[in-house]
Amino acid sequence: MTGAQSLVKSLIASGIDTCFANPGTSEMHFVAALDELPGIRCVLGLQENAVTGMADGFWRMARKPACTLLHCGPGLANGFANLHNARRARSGILNIVGDQATYHRQYDAALTTDTQGIARATSHWVRTSSSASAVAQDAMTALQIAQTARIATLILPSDVSWDAGGVVAAPLPPLAPLAADPLAVDNCARALRDRATKTLVLLGGDALLAEGQGLAGRIAQKTEAALLAEYAVGRVERGQGRLALERMPYSVDASLKVLAQYQRIVLAGALSPVAFFAYPGKPSSLVAPDAEILVLARPDQDVVGALRALAEALAAPALELPPQAERPGIVQGASTPEGLARTLAAVLPDQAIICDESVSYGRGFYPHTHGAAAHDWLHQTGGAIGLGLPMATGAAMGAPGRRVISLQADGSAMYSLQALWTQAREQLPCTTIILSNRKYNILIGEYRAVGTEPGATAMQMLDLGRPDLDWVRLAGGMGVEAARAATLEECADLLRTSFSRPEPFLIELLI
Amino acid sequence: MTGAQSLVKSLIASGIDTCFANPGTSEMHFVAALDELPGIRCVLGLQENAVTGMADGFWRMARKPACTLLHCGPGLANGFANLHNARRARSGILNIVGDQATYHRQYDAALTTDTQGIARATSHWVRTSSSASAVAQDAMTALQIAQTARIATLILPSDVSWDAGGVVAAPLPPLAPLAADPLAVDNCARALRDRATKTLVLLGGDALLAEGQGLAGRIAQKTEAALLAEYAVGRVERGQGRLALERMPYSVDASLKVLAQYQRIVLAGALSPVAFFAYPGKPSSLVAPDAEILVLARPDQDVVGALRALAEALAAPALELPPQAERPGIVQGASTPEGLARTLAAVLPDQAIICDESVSYGRGFYPHTHGAAAHDWLHQTGGAIGLGLPMATGAAMGAPGRRVISLQADGSAMYSLQALWTQAREQLPCTTIILSNRKYNILIGEYRAVGTEPGATAMQMLDLGRPDLDWVRLAGGMGVEAARAATLEECADLLRTSFSRPEPFLIELLI
Repeated sequence: MTGAQSLVKSLIASGIDTCFANPGTSEMHFVAALDELPGIRCVLGLQENAVTGMADGFWRMARKPACTLLHCGPGLANGFANLHNARRARSGILNIVGDQATYHRQYDAALTTDTQGIARATSHWVRTSSSASAVAQDAMTALQIAQTARIATLILPSDVSWDAGGVVAAPLPPLAPLAADPLAVDNCARALRDRATKTLVLLGGDALLAEGQGLAGRIAQKTEAALLAEYAVGRVERGQGRLALERMPYSVDASLKVLAQYQRIVLAGALSPVAFFAYPGKPSSLVAPDAEILVLARPDQDVVGALRALAEALAAPALELPPQAERPGIVQGASTPEGLARTLAAVLPDQAIICDESVSYGRGFYPHTHGAAAHDWLHQTGGAIGLGLPMATGAAMGAPGRRVISLQADGSAMYSLQALWTQAREQLPCTTIILSNRKYNILIGEYRAVGTEPGATAMQMLDLGRPDLDWVRLAGGMGVEAARAATLEECADLLRTSFSRPEPFLIELLI
Repeated sequence: MTGAQSLVKSLIASGIDTCFANPGTSEMHFVAALDELPGIRCVLGLQENAVTGMADGFWRMARKPACTLLHCGPGLANGFANLHNARRARSGILNIVGDQATYHRQYDAALTTDTQGIARATSHWVRTSSSASAVAQDAMTALQIAQTARIATLILPSDVSWDAGGVVAAPLPPLAPLAADPLAVDNCARALRDRATKTLVLLGGDALLAEGQGLAGRIAQKTEAALLAEYAVGRVERGQGRLALERMPYSVDASLKVLAQYQRIVLAGALSPVAFFAYPGKPSSLVAPDAEILVLARPDQDVVGALRALAEALAAPALELPPQAERPGIVQGASTPEGLARTLAAVLPDQAIICDESVSYGRGFYPHTHGAAAHDWLHQTGGAIGLGLPMATGAAMGAPGRRVISLQADGSAMYSLQALWTQAREQLPCTTIILSNRKYNILIGEYRAVGTEPGATAMQMLDLGRPDLDWVRLAGGMGVEAARAATLEECADLLRTSFSRPEPFLIELLI
């Protein structure tokens, strides 16, 4: 048995069923083993950032890792940005990166580069497998890391793949989630019993899934603490039957205003809020200087367990959901952020998945979509744009049968538009709304904050017109049917048409 | 004066006139300074690998560095693959990477990552500028590195940009090229006087430009040594008036056969040939085990100076160019590699620039194009595919007035198709021939070399059909006019039409 065969057998036995791939020459023996040993669905991405973003979306919905298959250091680097976003989302991914044969590396052939160096810059765990007999065991160690919501990168020299002597390895027992500190639970319970101090419970990670929200809701109901979601969380369960949670704003000024209301902040799987970027004369930390910060559970700890213990410590009764927001109606006329959010909420099918890379246009979508049918909202977590379309593709594969809707800024979409082709090939139920304003609008706002209007040279870098991108043709060129909408009623019609079909569809919405 | 203003002033004074850019929030003060202080042409790429590939193409033609403007670690990582290719081409590039403010970094905001770690994995020189007063001087040090055909990466924290106290720095004197060792010249001269030992002079780097070729031709004429180019060199001057040089083959078997003819190999700016990848049972080094290897000049040394010294030591007379190959005629019918090469040679305008990312289809183009008008041929140097279209874009900007023709494999084109948009915006005279076979043909060949035909799972990763990419629509979506050619005469007609127009054009050639 070759190393590659032992690796594929062990991956299948451990429950890996999906491989997002963009292979090259040094991976051919591994590809041959995937071909020979059925059990893993291999999904091609035409560029590696599409591949890694798909693995992120897959984890967010399936709650288990997929593997990626990448080619040498440059292939891994091409996928780096979405691994960064996945790390910030706390998604688990097992990267398998083919590379030069162990004995060939010293010859510094053209494609040789510092693969380990790149891997270390974004992975929680990196190993270069050294022999056919060790590779399956290495993969099981990597998988154990990935299963705990981390990025594991296994570098696979080509001779480790093709050499005989492969040994199938049994899956390692899953690592238990890190329990929150019982003392932290006690501290938070004591603090929350004091209703005189205005308190915010800031929710992150799994606290935003249904069970965590239910527990947080019980705690808030009992203690009158306020609840808020972090600005960008990997996955939030929303709509009918869930809490009408708002989230932290993006801008420094708005965040300071929100947080100034609270004398105490309990962090439940969330980090203490900081500015996305520094600005001259503005603070980095967004928390009021005299506010008390209590950590109930760090992002790497079991926040749902901690919320459960806290609810019990507080003897919080069962949650009585407040009256639900009504499902809004379709808005007419030209698109506005609020109008689009309401229109989307009006037509959203039950159990839809929203993939939100709407950047500046979508920052205020939450308040208008609480009344929509129950859905999941997946955020852009790491700020490296180009996540949206790949994440939608992977989410569709991680949650078969559910409609995926991308709210996708046009500038960001261009970084990884290749994912549309995978949606077409795999015939995934993905509907993309391209928010077409033909500029990097967020940056035009940031430029103005410097103190002046952008001139000709700056607009050369901030404007996406001249020529306009034609998303109907771009999507069509990758096999995705598409149409343009100039109004929200046209957008609603196209959304409904798309929802009635099993395959992907793209709407270029002029905003 | 801010740090950003001092930086822009110093860059302009040092001769930087072109910035390939994809900026973000942390670079807005630098963008504002570029806006305020005229002198640098800023060219937007819609993804960073397009940006870095343009800088590579620019260097290859202009022989001076451009700067890039990238956004944080993920932006740099997105551009890593083409920096890798540039490094292998020995192109000089000055990367300016905006990043978190120095004091904000500790807060680990979402977009914070190991920017230095990524930079180190592909740069010859890396520095994070620490203050507004130091940044211009740092940039001048970086530029000195870039001017000697290396990759320099300057990380620019946002507060270093916006702080007052910037100090304009004078350009540093250019570093002299590393002279070759005089003893090496003597050794090579002594060896080449011995005509009994069959000798190959393997040419790399600047030895493939006109002057180097002329000197190598004199040496070969005097000594009867054979001349050959490395497989993939940054830039080769070819066609009428130049030597009819062949190049090393790609495959291990063909390379071994070529090199087995020689008992002695003189390396003139070339590396000792090694296999692009290792294969079971095949050697890594392609040189016959008993061959004598002499280094005339390493790739980082002044190979033209070394060839001049060697020609003088050998008292080699002026070059008498052998009879030139005739310009071939247009071939009719369906495309073949030879037919396409001959058709291209037939219609090529004088001083054209060929950007070759034809991968497997184009390996044999050289013998059929010696009779073309004088032209430059730019190769895929590092094996990280996705270089072709960005390189063509940058080459057009580095050599204004010359026609650029991309020989572009379809699979590779998909990695960085965003460059087409920049060609349209800048109205560059770039003609792209997409070699549309709708598969990763090189990998299908490599798979077969493993020992069997690819099955359904493997073809899922090697086939680009289902759905077919429609390059006419993809190009049109980015503002580039395009048409499909099913035969070589149609291709020739479209090429001629394109050459008569100032703007970009794309031909999808079915192969």
